[in-house]
Amino acid sequence: MSNVGNSSNILWHKCSVEKADREQLLRQKGCVIWVTGLSGSGKSTLACALARGLHARGKLTYILDGDNVRHGLNSDLSFKAEDRAENIRRMGEVAKLFADAGVICIASLISPYRKDRELCRSLLKEGEFIEVFMDVPLSICESRDPKGLYKLARAGKIRGFTGIDDPYEPPLSCEIVLEQKDGSCASPDRLAGRVISYLEEKGYLSPA
Amino acid sequence: MSNVGNSSNILWHKCSVEKADREQLLRQKGCVIWVTGLSGSGKSTLACALARGLHARGKLTYILDGDNVRHGLNSDLSFKAEDRAENIRRMGEVAKLFADAGVICIASLISPYRKDRELCRSLLKEGEFIEVFMDVPLSICESRDPKGLYKLARAGKIRGFTGIDDPYEPPLSCEIVLEQKDGSCASPDRLAGRVISYLEEKGYLSPA
Repeated sequence: MSNVGNSSNILWHKCSVEKADREQLLRQKGCVIWVTGLSGSGKSTLACALARGLHARGKLTYILDGDNVRHGLNSDLSFKAEDRAENIRRMGEVAKLFADAGVICIASLISPYRKDRELCRSLLKEGEFIEVFMDVPLSICESRDPKGLYKLARAGKIRGFTGIDDPYEPPLSCEIVLEQKDGSCASPDRLAGRVISYLEEKGYLSPA
Repeated sequence: MSNVGNSSNILWHKCSVEKADREQLLRQKGCVIWVTGLSGSGKSTLACALARGLHARGKLTYILDGDNVRHGLNSDLSFKAEDRAENIRRMGEVAKLFADAGVICIASLISPYRKDRELCRSLLKEGEFIEVFMDVPLSICESRDPKGLYKLARAGKIRGFTGIDDPYEPPLSCEIVLEQKDGSCASPDRLAGRVISYLEEKGYLSPA
């Protein structure tokens, strides 16, 4: 009898259809593409472009969007520190299930702290967690302000806003950095293309 | 700006690859098969047989097993009443995401209370939630006792065990009842066959 977390009397059920079988069916490898960056850095836009590009190649993707998941699974969580951490943990656990299902799961959320991202990485097997950093200066994100949140944060109407009065910890080493500096402006499809090339090189777009 | 649950300042991101596109790719319809019943009623066995049968037909399934999910996403939850409800709610929310991904999601957990199952049903669109009741008498489940839990419950070593000192509320109306009475013993593959026939009739095994 195993004893896991707060749960005792739980056995692990193995089933005869395994990840590799699903990957064979889908002709791809299940993995998590974790897109991190400031609000307004283009995470959702990249996620959509990536889903489109991969779908056009006949690959099954699913986007876990931090905001969307807060409407359902994580609707019980607030934005206070421990709830933000729990939000990210659950996203990581769900992303792991999708990868196990054989899906290329695109998780898109600010996830500002290294330790939270590292926890999610640790849930997955080596190579199955692909961290993509949207490296866009705060000034550009703030000038875009697609949701008007920076304005609210600057006015003190939102507290603990990443980049304003809460830190964003950029990855020290991650699989892909998508840089955007002043002046340069790669299209979302071009940025997605870089991720797709990475997946292709690493064999994620072929069966296991 | 929407305000959802404990979360404000959250917008819903729509993406150009939709459920119907994924269903077209997979040549199936995403849905949730919710398998409910007493411990030892054969839920996990049915789930596995179902996954095998559907995989053999080229369909993508994923099993969310109540026990397995307690190792990850729900490892923070205990077996006290509110945690059991939260366990089921999260399973429902995750199953909904899988159905949205186009996957035939097989959720297998005791889920003893009608109101918890109805909550999960309410998360999904009409027809996307297929409740399968493993209608096996307690006496048979207890004689099987595959995990030795009934013995522990009878000895008072587990409290609030469904069927012993906590009620199981059978569905009043559900999509499929898999009955097993004393003497009769349909094979898991035959029971799974009944579910697969249902899916076929209702068009789940064809693209949207």
